[in-house]
This record gives sequence, structure tokens and C-alpha cells, in this order.
Amino acid sequence: MKAQALEVRLGERSYPIHIGRGIAGNPALYAPHVAGRRAAVVTSEAVAGLHAGMVEQAIAQSATGTMRIVLPDGEAHKDWKTLDRIYEALLKAHADRRTVLVAVGGGVVGDMAGFAAATYQRGVECLQVPTTLLAQVDSSVGGKTAINHPLGKNMIGAFHQPVAVIADTELLVTLPERELAAGLAEVLKYGAIADADFLAWIEQHAAQLRARDPAALAHAIRRSCEIKADIVAADEREAGVRALLNFGHTFGHAIETASGYGNWLHGEAVGAGMVMAGRFSARLGRIPAAAADRLAHAVERLGLPVAPPKIAVPTWLELMGRDKKNVDGRITLILLEELGRAVVARDAPVRELETFLASA
Amino acid sequence: MKAQALEVRLGERSYPIHIGRGIAGNPALYAPHVAGRRAAVVTSEAVAGLHAGMVEQAIAQSATGTMRIVLPDGEAHKDWKTLDRIYEALLKAHADRRTVLVAVGGGVVGDMAGFAAATYQRGVECLQVPTTLLAQVDSSVGGKTAINHPLGKNMIGAFHQPVAVIADTELLVTLPERELAAGLAEVLKYGAIADADFLAWIEQHAAQLRARDPAALAHAIRRSCEIKADIVAADEREAGVRALLNFGHTFGHAIETASGYGNWLHGEAVGAGMVMAGRFSARLGRIPAAAADRLAHAVERLGLPVAPPKIAVPTWLELMGRDKKNVDGRITLILLEELGRAVVARDAPVRELETFLASA
Repeated sequence: MKAQALEVRLGERSYPIHIGRGIAGNPALYAPHVAGRRAAVVTSEAVAGLHAGMVEQAIAQSATGTMRIVLPDGEAHKDWKTLDRIYEALLKAHADRRTVLVAVGGGVVGDMAGFAAATYQRGVECLQVPTTLLAQVDSSVGGKTAINHPLGKNMIGAFHQPVAVIADTELLVTLPERELAAGLAEVLKYGAIADADFLAWIEQHAAQLRARDPAALAHAIRRSCEIKADIVAADEREAGVRALLNFGHTFGHAIETASGYGNWLHGEAVGAGMVMAGRFSARLGRIPAAAADRLAHAVERLGLPVAPPKIAVPTWLELMGRDKKNVDGRITLILLEELGRAVVARDAPVRELETFLASA
Repeated sequence: MKAQALEVRLGERSYPIHIGRGIAGNPALYAPHVAGRRAAVVTSEAVAGLHAGMVEQAIAQSATGTMRIVLPDGEAHKDWKTLDRIYEALLKAHADRRTVLVAVGGGVVGDMAGFAAATYQRGVECLQVPTTLLAQVDSSVGGKTAINHPLGKNMIGAFHQPVAVIADTELLVTLPERELAAGLAEVLKYGAIADADFLAWIEQHAAQLRARDPAALAHAIRRSCEIKADIVAADEREAGVRALLNFGHTFGHAIETASGYGNWLHGEAVGAGMVMAGRFSARLGRIPAAAADRLAHAVERLGLPVAPPKIAVPTWLELMGRDKKNVDGRITLILLEELGRAVVARDAPVRELETFLASA
């Protein structure tokens, strides 16, 4: 399949997303960014043996040198200690400001390589080769980078746009089923917040998506990236509409933190979080109960959990109160006005929320 | 003395530098940035008892709340561990993205508070109240923030412009003499790289500056900030001319690292580094030996060391090779074309440099 390129328009920080089957080994996609420079491939233990070598070969066609930095797998390692491995390897290799970081991995690798790129010598370029569906449709688009802090997820980070993203559907063949489903949760999110037609398309193609049909995946990735790119272009620094992308995430982050990073995949928590956000929207009379049911059913058909783990109400509130979207201590939620249209609710009614959480 | 405001022009990231005597306690200078928000004053143990209370009182006139975060003093603590104290205090206080960090201290506090502001929840606003001459003329202007890494100084950081800088000459009354001289080294640097008239003025007013004459200090701060602001406005991300600001710093950083952070003050190392850069410029025939002598004499008159500590040549080269200005392993130096005009030399002749360093 030929690569399709989608442009994320951010002025001088604009960059292309290449989408296609078998494109991650194509030297021509890397050359504009690494020619005459050194490249550092940042990957994880699980991905290193699968895809990193192919990417390195493609890069080596034009780069003056490549090095590989391998991180441990998993959200539990998305911390300062692991980030410092990247810094240390770059410093030991005397990597300079023209060195390009190439992230080959899932969201954790992308977030950490991106944050390392944002902060190494006050900023170097970063190219993203996401190897999970979640990273292809979400974390590699939009420039959000971060590490976790013991007191909160993604609390330390930066906005740092990549110079290009290469999303290869072929890489998804080796993806564990749970991770595929976790990525589909984010795909569904784009439909739920911004495009009722896309939402219906996902419902109709749930089986093909779970079977990794390349054409279905390419369409899902492309439409997801288009929606995200439009929102990010309108609000690069998350001052307004970009918050809509967090639909399901306030509940989801609380689920992830309460159950310990890594026990729930991010996308799984977002799936259950979207069900909760939909049901809470219905409880407030914003959408019919049937619409919330339809969303929950779609989550289920994608192979995702629909119910959160048991969490005490004060813990819910404490964890939701620490969300970055909150201003002056109030809880901000993304709620549905209809399927395909979400809004930022800056002052969610806390009493209603408590009652809702008690029965969650 | 009334505050004079100098505008650093960086498009939507433009900000004012207020310069004057006794202005750090003026609520009106803070109100535009903290009104209706929470403020976190980041300071050091030494400064906390001197100036932090006055700044907090001024802020409290318009902020909805203030908190204080006290860091240990000294370059040796400009590391991840100390930075994490800021993150932890902010997270424990549920500080959100509208919280403003107010750095009250020297360059170390400014660099760390600035980097914390650049990365806390992917970026919050920062106001700088520098309490040393060095910070007033250098590290609070231009948006460079950083922490040190065990493998190199300022290697981890970000460009993050403050929303305002308040430079109060009254705060310099309590400054130890060594630190005053260290600040004067940076003042002299601006004359050496960009303004021969200012260089001559500094030579003529060396005694008044060392005696902390408020009018002389205000002029020195203002002209230094003007020169720096012009250079930063032309090259915010240090792609070109901004490198001129590093005159004396490649040698200086090596001196600081070789002798252990904190044994030489940054400005002292820059003073000796400028003498070396001047003499090396003369050795290459770029300036007359008499001009290099004149620069060395000016450094001496400001109360600064003119000779580096004994460092082995391989150590010099290793430490200079790790400088962020270097591209592809070559050593980049800032050299003088005449007193008052510097250039970026991207391929310093390494043999000449080795011979020069052997006799340093």
C-alpha cells in the first residue's frame, strides 16, 4: 500500500503523518529528517526485536550514524529514572542538538522519547514511528509528551511537535489483542466527540477492526488522526477545545491510578471511562439513556471492559481532582451533548457526581 | 527610583523587564500576572529570609493564594532531585495550570523554577525576580531554563519565556562581593561582544560598580539587558547569533565542571574564560595582543580571576567537546574580531587549541 500523507497544520511546526501498510521500512520517508545527521532510535525491550532493526536500516540509508536506546516496557517505567537512561545514552555518545530522536514503540516510548527530545539540550527533533494502534491514533499526534510522577500521571511534560509520524498498519499484526482493543477505544472516542458518521462506521466495522483488516485499520487511523489534527490545530496548547480529546480520560486516569499503573491499559481505562462519561451525561439529562447505552454497547463490541473497578468515592474525587484540566479546584469533565458532539463542562455538579460514583 | 520597563520583543511571548531601585515590593508590578490566581514563590534557603517575604506580601495584594517552595542553595543542587521538590510541592498543593511560579533568587533558582514552569503539567507561567546581578543581567532574560546532569552542565532544559522580570538594584545590597563580581563578568561580556562604548564605560566605572552605586548598576543592567534582548529577539532558539552570548562560556563551563560545580562561581569561570577566548583570538591573529591584554585587565579590575585552574589538555578537550554549541563533534568557539564584536567560529583549529590549552 502506498503511504498517504496527512498534514497537521501548526504553522512552522506543521508536520506530516504518513499512513500505510509496510511503510516503516521505507528509507525515503526518513531521509528528509535524518540526512546528514545522527539518529538515536528509542525503543522498548519488546519492540526492539520486532521492528527497531527495520527502522534502523531505513534510517542508515541517509543518516551519518545511528544508535539504539532500549527502555523497559510498560507504563510503570514511564518515570524520571527511565527518562534519564535516554539522557545518559545521548550524553555518553556526545549527541548534539542536530541529533534526531526516532521513537519506535507504543505510547510510553513515544511520550518518553518525545519529552527527552523536548528537553535534551533544550530541544532536539523527534520522529515518531508508533507501533501500537493507540499510539498511531493518539499519543504520536499533537505534540503532548510526558512522564508520570508518583503523585500523578503525565504531570511532568512538554508540548513538543514531532517532525513526522510514520503509522504503519503492518506493525499492528504483532500487537497483543488487548492492546489492539485499547487502541480501538481511542478510535471510538473520536467518533463519540466529533463525528456521528464515523461512530456508526466503527460500530459497523467492529469485527473487521478486531480482525486487523488493513483497509479498515487505515481508514480508522486516518479519520482519527484527521479529527485529532483539526482539534490540535485549533488549540495547540490545550487552552480550549483540545480538552475534548480527554473524553473518558478524567474517569480513565482515576481508574489507571487507583488500580496501579499497568494493570489497566490506558485504552481500557478510557473505554470504561467513556461509558461512565456517557452515563453521567445521561444522568444530567444531556443525552438520552439510550444513547449512553449505545456507546456502552460499542465499547463492549470492541472487546473492552465497560465497568470500572471498585473505587471508594473519596478516592475517585481525589484522583479526579488532580486532573490537569481543572481550574481552581473545580472538577472539569468532558460530557456528551449528543453522540458525535462533546462539550467541556467546567463546573461539573459535585453532589451529582458523588452519587453517580457511589453507584459506579 | 521609578521602574523603567524594557520590552523583550518575541511576538506573543514578549515580556517586560522592570529595572529600578526598591521595586521588588511594588504590588502593581505583580498584579497583571497573578491577579485571581495562585502563586508559588520558589526561592532558596539563603534568599528566603532576605527577600521572599517582601515579594509574597506584594503578590498577596492580588493573588488568590501564595505558597513558598524553598530549595537548597548552590549549583550543586541544580539537579533532578531538587527540581522534584518543586513538582512535589505543587502536586501536593493541587496547583493547576493557571498557577504562576515566581522565582525569587539567583540563577540557580531562576533556572530551576523556570524549568519547573516549562514542564509542570506541560507548562505554566513564570515570573522572575532575580536577586543577584548575574541573574538580573543574564539568566532571567531570554527564556533559557535548565538543570545539570552528572554528565554535563545545563544539559536538560527548555526554552520558556517568563511573563515578566523584576530587576531591583536594592536587592544587590546584600549580595556577597564574589557574587557581585561574578555578575560584572557577564556585564563586561555584553560590552566585549557587542558594544565597544559600553565596554569603555564599564572600564571607567569599575570602581562605582564594585561599590554598588545604584545609578551605575541600573545603567549596567539596562544596557546588558538591551543587548541580550536584541540578540535573543533575533534568535530565540539559539540557531545562530544567540551563540555569541556564550563568549567565554565554552572555556568557562570546562573550568566549572573540572573544578566541581560550586567551587568557581559561574561568573568567575566566565571571567577567566573570556580572558582565554580573548587570548586565543589574538593567537589566531583575529585581534591584536594588546586588545586581549586590555580585556584581561578589565576582568581583573572587576575583581575577577584571570587565570584558569590547572586542567590537563585531554580533560579540557573532553569537557569543551560536550558543549551544546558543537555540531558533529567539531569544537565551536566564540571569538573576538575586535573589542565590541564577536563571531561564532564553527571549526576552531584543534591543534592550535591544544597548544594553547597546554600553556593555559
